[in-house]
Amino acid sequence: MTTERVQVAILGAGPAGLLLSHLLHLAGVRSVVVEARDQEYVQARVRAGVVEHGAAEILREAGVGDGLDREGLPHDGIELRFDGEGHRIPMADLTGRHITVYGQQKVVRDLTERRLADGGDVRFACGPAQVHDVDGPEPSVTYEVGGVGQRIVADFVVGCDGAHGAGRVALGAAPVEKEYPFAWLGILAHAAPRITELVYANHERGFALYSMRSNEVSRLYLQVPASDRLEDWPDDRIWEELAVRFSLGGEPWEPTRGEIFERSLAPLHSYVGEPMQRGRLFLAGDAAHIVPPTGAKGMNLAIRDVSLLAPALAAQLRDGEESGLRTYSERALRDVWRAEYFSWWMTTMLHRFEGDAFDRRVQTAQLRSVVTSQAHSTALAEAYVG
Amino acid sequence: MTTERVQVAILGAGPAGLLLSHLLHLAGVRSVVVEARDQEYVQARVRAGVVEHGAAEILREAGVGDGLDREGLPHDGIELRFDGEGHRIPMADLTGRHITVYGQQKVVRDLTERRLADGGDVRFACGPAQVHDVDGPEPSVTYEVGGVGQRIVADFVVGCDGAHGAGRVALGAAPVEKEYPFAWLGILAHAAPRITELVYANHERGFALYSMRSNEVSRLYLQVPASDRLEDWPDDRIWEELAVRFSLGGEPWEPTRGEIFERSLAPLHSYVGEPMQRGRLFLAGDAAHIVPPTGAKGMNLAIRDVSLLAPALAAQLRDGEESGLRTYSERALRDVWRAEYFSWWMTTMLHRFEGDAFDRRVQTAQLRSVVTSQAHSTALAEAYVG
Repeated sequence: MTTERVQVAILGAGPAGLLLSHLLHLAGVRSVVVEARDQEYVQARVRAGVVEHGAAEILREAGVGDGLDREGLPHDGIELRFDGEGHRIPMADLTGRHITVYGQQKVVRDLTERRLADGGDVRFACGPAQVHDVDGPEPSVTYEVGGVGQRIVADFVVGCDGAHGAGRVALGAAPVEKEYPFAWLGILAHAAPRITELVYANHERGFALYSMRSNEVSRLYLQVPASDRLEDWPDDRIWEELAVRFSLGGEPWEPTRGEIFERSLAPLHSYVGEPMQRGRLFLAGDAAHIVPPTGAKGMNLAIRDVSLLAPALAAQLRDGEESGLRTYSERALRDVWRAEYFSWWMTTMLHRFEGDAFDRRVQTAQLRSVVTSQAHSTALAEAYVG
Repeated sequence: MTTERVQVAILGAGPAGLLLSHLLHLAGVRSVVVEARDQEYVQARVRAGVVEHGAAEILREAGVGDGLDREGLPHDGIELRFDGEGHRIPMADLTGRHITVYGQQKVVRDLTERRLADGGDVRFACGPAQVHDVDGPEPSVTYEVGGVGQRIVADFVVGCDGAHGAGRVALGAAPVEKEYPFAWLGILAHAAPRITELVYANHERGFALYSMRSNEVSRLYLQVPASDRLEDWPDDRIWEELAVRFSLGGEPWEPTRGEIFERSLAPLHSYVGEPMQRGRLFLAGDAAHIVPPTGAKGMNLAIRDVSLLAPALAAQLRDGEESGLRTYSERALRDVWRAEYFSWWMTTMLHRFEGDAFDRRVQTAQLRSVVTSQAHSTALAEAYVG
């Protein structure tokens, strides 16, 4: 067992862990990032694709927004499609802000490159880690490399290692959660998107989302029963179902087809573990909270958490100022619950539920209120663009 | 059996039936209003108490807004109280419009007086009526007085006779409905209201509403289990529970107490019968749709229905112009569903449901969004003031 000391030990090299390490570096605080998977796996993981206004500002201020500004697709609106009609929500006109379509993979790539260029200590392929002694003065993280135990003793440990990581286990918060009775079937296809803005479609056969990762790659989603498997959805069935759910004026509306090069099934659920701190262990991002993807909030919340946590850690470690860390959980959770509400709202408004005719009619009336009331549109747009 | 002929036979002498009769009179169309109950009963019935902007305009334009303008209490805002804090929604500032607190009893009184002064034919104490032959050219209404059958043959029959009347039965629409798992215990008390605007309180023990009918009469509501009976709620328990649910800053907040002179239990439900027409029978108000009282929309929707139906009937009967009647149901239902959505939304956001911690936290986050986002506040205010 080798033992090292560091100021902050970070679990997970996703957006939260990498950005935290970078922000701490800018503040003069040393950290080590311990990632279970290898670098190729981490950078190939397909995740979120929408960077909201506030998150983009955080990345830019941290000097890691160049890729976003160069390759990201700024979007000034989204479309809500229901009852066979499309309605644009002009987000930029309503709020003065916009979102940027930019894959989480690229955020991870940008941050990894920057950390390594700055001499950052990012360790991939560490396998499962464990967290120890978070209630005492010397918390630590252990993992194994080639059968040899590695121990990192830190002033603070931060779990940025997602919903199934060691951080959540060590913190042991009481979960507050909700399961939705369906999943998203998501595909990536080599196909120029037929549209330039996202389309959120509420159809009696279920929700569908038309999005994109670039001008050559479409990202499409279908609501499917949670019990479905990928083999239930051959390519033709996917494309045909998308065309039906995106129908306009009673006619199927075909997405541009192309080779499907990635597909996944993900159940939708909401989760919050409170508080986001225990002793010298803090959580950020998916380790602390999960939102259904409908509101595009997952990565944005992770970035927001870290933007609160990094200065708080730096203030404590450099100046002994503890108020930032003491209030971190409370401050972060305010935004978390706002995002949980928004994601729940978008999910319940847009998906098809087993329910009676009343619920279905109210859902449509709610959508009609959102697209006909400027105030209601603005409320959605403000929450969406962050 | 005596038989008469009239252009329009109206069932029910509530706000919808009386206003319809009045508007038809102004348009030169003869109607008869047939009311099951006697005049004293009808005018003593305690119902809604909020007249929205659009409904007030309709009453004024019809020349029956004097009482409203003289005795009504204009309200420029409401308070949402949750987590022990009060938050005012400044409706007039946000929308340029306001609501008027004015009991449905007074609207009925004003309309009855006006109909009788104009020589209108309003028949009270007719007992249960029946509707016949709505699919043919000569629909009719029958009832009995002193054992003698009365028959009114009309060009059109309009059911304004509420959820349990003959109109709904004769129309036979497929119901679209929802039951809520609780009721409202409502009281009227001789007590000067402690506040000048309505307070909608979301408390972990359930919803409460502080409202008033005048500067001397308070109207207060408590969410209670649907299985509760009035005898479960002696006066002291009501006052004590209200004080707890209106708590501010962790301290009970006592309404001004006074003699409780009316009390009722009403289950909450939503109902829409579609369409609102069958042949020569039309429905308006509660006969066609029920909203939970949380959004204060019931009487306002009835007034709105009638404002669409009266000119359509007059155009048909005077000019043979049928498009208004043909599109009545569709036009009315657009507003009905908007109101059903709003009432459902207010109900689900403000009441305590059996549910997990997640739903409860999301409810609070939603309330926080409503009171902190001007756009979200405005969306509520616009829907509320109508």
